Amino acid sequence: MPHSTETPISEAAIVEAAHALRGRAVRMLEELVAHPSLLGHEQGAQAFMAETFASLGLRVHQFEIDEQKIRQHPGYSPSIVPYQGRTNVVGIHQPDGPQKGRSLIFNGHIDVVPTGAEVLWKHPPFQPTIEGDRLYGRGSADMKAGIAAYTMAYAALQSLGQAPASPVYFQSVVEEECTGNGALACLVEGYRADAAIIPEPLGGVMTCQMGVLWFALEVLGKPVHASVAQTGVGAIDFSLYLFSELKKLEQHWNEPANRYRSYAHHAHPVNFNLGKIQGGEWASSVPSACRSDIRIGFYPDMNVARAKAEVEAALASAYAAHPARESLSYRLIYEGFQADGFDLDLDSPIVTELSKCYQDIVGEPLEPRAFTGTTDAKFFNIYGQTPAVCYGPTGSSIHGIDEWVSIDSLMQVTAVLAVFMARWCGVNRITPPAGI
Amino acid sequence: MPHSTETPISEAAIVEAAHALRGRAVRMLEELVAHPSLLGHEQGAQAFMAETFASLGLRVHQFEIDEQKIRQHPGYSPSIVPYQGRTNVVGIHQPDGPQKGRSLIFNGHIDVVPTGAEVLWKHPPFQPTIEGDRLYGRGSADMKAGIAAYTMAYAALQSLGQAPASPVYFQSVVEEECTGNGALACLVEGYRADAAIIPEPLGGVMTCQMGVLWFALEVLGKPVHASVAQTGVGAIDFSLYLFSELKKLEQHWNEPANRYRSYAHHAHPVNFNLGKIQGGEWASSVPSACRSDIRIGFYPDMNVARAKAEVEAALASAYAAHPARESLSYRLIYEGFQADGFDLDLDSPIVTELSKCYQDIVGEPLEPRAFTGTTDAKFFNIYGQTPAVCYGPTGSSIHGIDEWVSIDSLMQVTAVLAVFMARWCGVNRITPPAGI
Repeated sequence: MPHSTETPISEAAIVEAAHALRGRAVRMLEELVAHPSLLGHEQGAQAFMAETFASLGLRVHQFEIDEQKIRQHPGYSPSIVPYQGRTNVVGIHQPDGPQKGRSLIFNGHIDVVPTGAEVLWKHPPFQPTIEGDRLYGRGSADMKAGIAAYTMAYAALQSLGQAPASPVYFQSVVEEECTGNGALACLVEGYRADAAIIPEPLGGVMTCQMGVLWFALEVLGKPVHASVAQTGVGAIDFSLYLFSELKKLEQHWNEPANRYRSYAHHAHPVNFNLGKIQGGEWASSVPSACRSDIRIGFYPDMNVARAKAEVEAALASAYAAHPARESLSYRLIYEGFQADGFDLDLDSPIVTELSKCYQDIVGEPLEPRAFTGTTDAKFFNIYGQTPAVCYGPTGSSIHGIDEWVSIDSLMQVTAVLAVFMARWCGVNRITPPAGI
Repeated sequence: MPHSTETPISEAAIVEAAHALRGRAVRMLEELVAHPSLLGHEQGAQAFMAETFASLGLRVHQFEIDEQKIRQHPGYSPSIVPYQGRTNVVGIHQPDGPQKGRSLIFNGHIDVVPTGAEVLWKHPPFQPTIEGDRLYGRGSADMKAGIAAYTMAYAALQSLGQAPASPVYFQSVVEEECTGNGALACLVEGYRADAAIIPEPLGGVMTCQMGVLWFALEVLGKPVHASVAQTGVGAIDFSLYLFSELKKLEQHWNEPANRYRSYAHHAHPVNFNLGKIQGGEWASSVPSACRSDIRIGFYPDMNVARAKAEVEAALASAYAAHPARESLSYRLIYEGFQADGFDLDLDSPIVTELSKCYQDIVGEPLEPRAFTGTTDAKFFNIYGQTPAVCYGPTGSSIHGIDEWVSIDSLMQVTAVLAVFMARWCGVNRITPPAGI
């Protein structure tokens, strides 16, 4: 790819080139969705990403997460499954010609959450299916379309004989959905840039997100024969009691006076979710043990340590108030997210320039959003000196049934990212690699 | 074992002979408890029972449950695990000499319920441990001590050169704890007698028991991302809502006006137990599916069909009243107990004569009991023309933690059963088999 003298290209041409890749973008997304890249099963999709990056002429850096390296990092979350054989993939663009612009990271996560009851899906969740503008499938919106968008944005420039005039890192990471350790490992490997964009399907430009804490609540009860059930204290009942007491904290944090400013007008910013439960042993025995997997959100001006302390205090009070506490016990196990939130300055160039780019191309303002969940953007913002936002293709039912992404939205984001990349990084003229 | 002319033996001698077997009874019980005869894993214990019966000179009939044979029986309950390799064992005593008395069945179940959280046990649940009068272990009271008691009662007579003068059937059956199909299969094989005693650890003489119905409640919810949890309807929440609505039926049935007479003074006869729950997929997703395993009790004057109808109606009403019902669904799966209750006439000879025998030996009345659970006695009483009661060694924490049985109680029951057998069946003089 020898560079030649830069010749100006019009942004209209970039937009057009992006939309010309619609078929290729959809095929890439279909292939990605067809890989059931659930936690621990990301490697098929990651191998495809490595091939895809290589085919675009990017240098491919593929590496396993080394838990030794990240464990002491303040952004580390206790992992759930081992990292052997599960790699991050980074496609690295280094300008051949003069470096003129600013560097950029595109980051996307390859992992998807469980499908839930497959019987509820109208199409098999890992069989991508198009209906009109919608591409259905688990992970279609969250966030394989985002990965397709940033990849196709690069391909669009390439199709015009252009390449960014500064380093651009295309990261496809594992484990965003439970720890973020994939993105953290990229940070620890040394990846930094002047900004990062994560094409998550959140609508607008996401500049603020909440902290998220996961924990398991394991309780032991006082089992008895079901024929005298009222004389025992079931572990399931006790778990639900503890969770209902904990929910008072959710309610408290949601009260207008207690809200962080970015969530002042949100319907219900703080959500405590009992996502999973397994308890009891036998229909005719009062349950002896129960485990609940819980996710809580907390505001960006709180941190993990304080969230833990408040949870622990709430549970301790609930326990102390239980009349049968002497027959009961519980313990908290911290597994998964221990993620602080952040609130990026809206004057940050990544926000203002991306918003302007969007306005210029789409003709509408790009609204800043405060997200009630967590994304990998936290690592860049909190620990990476790399201002990061989320802006990506939108759809519906992420973490739900019949998840879909809008193909029009995918192509619009592709166009915006291509133009933004050209603006942010500058471009050099290249000879496109053969076959592109 | 040629018989000789009967010579009268004193009942005091039988009692003494029974107590002389204390060491042997405890060893037998220890061996039984050491077999973890959980559902589907009964065969080690059953092999031991077959050997034990054979060593006493009983003819051993060992047979698998043939589901084809029992499926159409009104006492059948839908099974949970296949029956291959899981046998009932019957030790058959046929008098060599003249048949003078009435025939008798002793029945006990070899299966035990799950231990619950083993960490709660002070001794490993399948490592029988004696502390003073207590023998600890899962199944010690429920009801391996009962099996040891009826076996040792026979051995006690034998040690005196006596044997029952009528047929006695010693049944060790599987699956009392979830279907009763083991005892039902004995019935279908043709076993009948003038009475049956099941040495269950229920205290007094149990002459009345409730019906029990098991079912699984499978629900599907409307999963969403935990960050917007309040916009979905979680399957766990929906399950708990349905169960809480169902509990109103429990409350209704427990009201004094609605009670069956035998439970008029009981603290809480009707118990609906959510014994097991498994729901949700991911801490950060609102749960899509949940399964609850539920056990309900109902009075002997109700039957399974009516209990089902009331449960189904209660769930249908609850569903109809749920504001988000259009996003929700549920189904009932009937697995395990579909057991009617019974109430045996207190004038039945098995009740009056066993009670008198107990009074004569122990010097206290044997109180009739109405049990709030189910036992295999139902099959004998309802379908077998064989009046049946429960009377057995007592202990504590059946289906709970640190289950134990009183060894003194075991020996007292052994003595009472030995004397009762002699009275009910009459005795013939025998030459004890070698080694006894």
